[in-house]
Amino acid sequence: MSNSENAKSKSITRFLKSQRNNYSVRDLAKGILKGDNKVLAKAITLVESNLNKHKELATQVIHSVLPYSGKSIRIGITGVPGVGKSTFIESFGKMLTSQGVKTAVLAVDPSSNVTKGSILGDKTRMNQLSVDPLAFVRPSPSSGCLGGIGNATRESILLCEAAGYEVILVETVGVGQSEYLVKEMVDFFLLLMLSGAGDEIQGIKRGIMEMADSLVVNKADGENQILAKKAAQAYRNALHLFPMREDLWSPKSTICSGLNGTGIEDIWKTVQQFKEQQKSNGWFDHRRKTQSRTWLNDLIEAQLGAFFYSKQIVQSNLDQITKQVIDGKKTPYAGSQELMQIFLNSVKSDS
Amino acid sequence: MSNSENAKSKSITRFLKSQRNNYSVRDLAKGILKGDNKVLAKAITLVESNLNKHKELATQVIHSVLPYSGKSIRIGITGVPGVGKSTFIESFGKMLTSQGVKTAVLAVDPSSNVTKGSILGDKTRMNQLSVDPLAFVRPSPSSGCLGGIGNATRESILLCEAAGYEVILVETVGVGQSEYLVKEMVDFFLLLMLSGAGDEIQGIKRGIMEMADSLVVNKADGENQILAKKAAQAYRNALHLFPMREDLWSPKSTICSGLNGTGIEDIWKTVQQFKEQQKSNGWFDHRRKTQSRTWLNDLIEAQLGAFFYSKQIVQSNLDQITKQVIDGKKTPYAGSQELMQIFLNSVKSDS
Repeated sequence: MSNSENAKSKSITRFLKSQRNNYSVRDLAKGILKGDNKVLAKAITLVESNLNKHKELATQVIHSVLPYSGKSIRIGITGVPGVGKSTFIESFGKMLTSQGVKTAVLAVDPSSNVTKGSILGDKTRMNQLSVDPLAFVRPSPSSGCLGGIGNATRESILLCEAAGYEVILVETVGVGQSEYLVKEMVDFFLLLMLSGAGDEIQGIKRGIMEMADSLVVNKADGENQILAKKAAQAYRNALHLFPMREDLWSPKSTICSGLNGTGIEDIWKTVQQFKEQQKSNGWFDHRRKTQSRTWLNDLIEAQLGAFFYSKQIVQSNLDQITKQVIDGKKTPYAGSQELMQIFLNSVKSDS
Repeated sequence: MSNSENAKSKSITRFLKSQRNNYSVRDLAKGILKGDNKVLAKAITLVESNLNKHKELATQVIHSVLPYSGKSIRIGITGVPGVGKSTFIESFGKMLTSQGVKTAVLAVDPSSNVTKGSILGDKTRMNQLSVDPLAFVRPSPSSGCLGGIGNATRESILLCEAAGYEVILVETVGVGQSEYLVKEMVDFFLLLMLSGAGDEIQGIKRGIMEMADSLVVNKADGENQILAKKAAQAYRNALHLFPMREDLWSPKSTICSGLNGTGIEDIWKTVQQFKEQQKSNGWFDHRRKTQSRTWLNDLIEAQLGAFFYSKQIVQSNLDQITKQVIDGKKTPYAGSQELMQIFLNSVKSDS
């Protein structure tokens, strides 16, 4: 645990101690169901904590509110850095709250090995939305280890839903593998694009494009509007080349401006159209069930790993075996087999 | 295990039985060190097998030849489908063998959930290279589970090196997460690009571009040459915007034609230049050591999972708990905790 994580855990513990009489599982659950954003934020802090006792408390809270979750539409939003995600979310979110739709904004940041991007680190990036009484904006979680990458965000989605949020926007950093993580936790996946200069750099992989339920060319304002329309048409043509999807949805390609609001309402219409179609053909529920299954598998994997490395005897052999592997004295496979044996003996000898 | 995997395992077992007196660990190792491609191919088949006994035999073989491995330069090659990877590898490989450099071609195919691409499935795609006495071309492995995705390829690299191959080319499907896997097993990472039409679709992610040690615009032949040069210049400009790398290598951006051989030798010069620089500044060895550590961790993860799901009692509770999770009666976190407890009790009661 890093120093800052350590400090964070200590501060949570201090908070819990000071509030012991006020904040039981029941009180947290009640506060969330009442739609109290402060309580919601506190529960999410517990979800993001790496301490077992916080995690346990969070689990109980989630369990209590579980029957009230699941009723939102979960929208993933991705695009390369610079595509205007924050401005888009601000604009899309404000449009929703102006229609009385309670909207929450969460983020996933798997902190890629190559690019250490910070996302939503600064709440003030969404000036208007973050002070909107119908909105809840949560900065990026530090990537926790207890539940595996993305677990905190998935649990936060459930808590936000229990708090009455009808639309959950999940932002990704748009670098590395975050799109795959987010795709696994949302109903609708929106890919923001840019037109014109820099296309070669900003580009997208076919794999990401295939995951998208809607492509939206952002920054379609001023002189850029014509280019944006052209790009959207090009993407539309490209989408036609893809085979028909199993869930029968035809991905859309449109333009928008996070800056002046062009096309923002149309995107919401597309989302509603998607929801209606997918609910009636059964894919909406099917997708969520598949996601729950994947989530369970991910958690098992993460917990197995955490348990393995928590063993004293594994730790005390790990360095030496790793060194042998690194020095080419032993294959990684042989090294891992050896560590597995040490681990199993240790579990068996536990009282 | 699928039917075809089952059939494959049976055929390997049959092969081993029939050859029992001829192919001991020692004989396999000896054959590999002698540079016998048939023996090498057989050892790789064992590496790719999902049966424990094959895996054990393979582990022993790798252990025997381990001191003779590690001496090649490992080159990863990626790019979207249609970029001309096969033609490029054929051309690059022939250039190398014409200079007397023994060259092996391997592939990684994590069989993405969205796009089920097959790669190198047809050996005949590299007509000339596959019959070249100085070359060894291996079709894509089926993704094994015993060692985790990519493990078979990493072990195959070691075997090829022991067989005297000086350059190992590792091809990826260029879809989804395969680039990250390959980056973790090679010294030099080459990204093939296209110029001109379709840039919006073929594009690349910034993350992938940051991983590349060299960008090469392929199909720079005929009328396309001018466009290719322009694109290479644009990428070169883009690369200048990236921060200086820790290993002090400045990624190159050039053009080539897999078809007529333009620029192919220059790429080899770049690779040699890279090797020289990185060997002298210590990053070559440092990178390999880091990769070994990651590989060890990946294997531990994969083996823990395999062991977990192999437990009868886990299997018999898995369906019910999964159903409760899917039906929203239980959170995935609570479900995974429950399964972990069942697993641990089972391990403890093992005699």
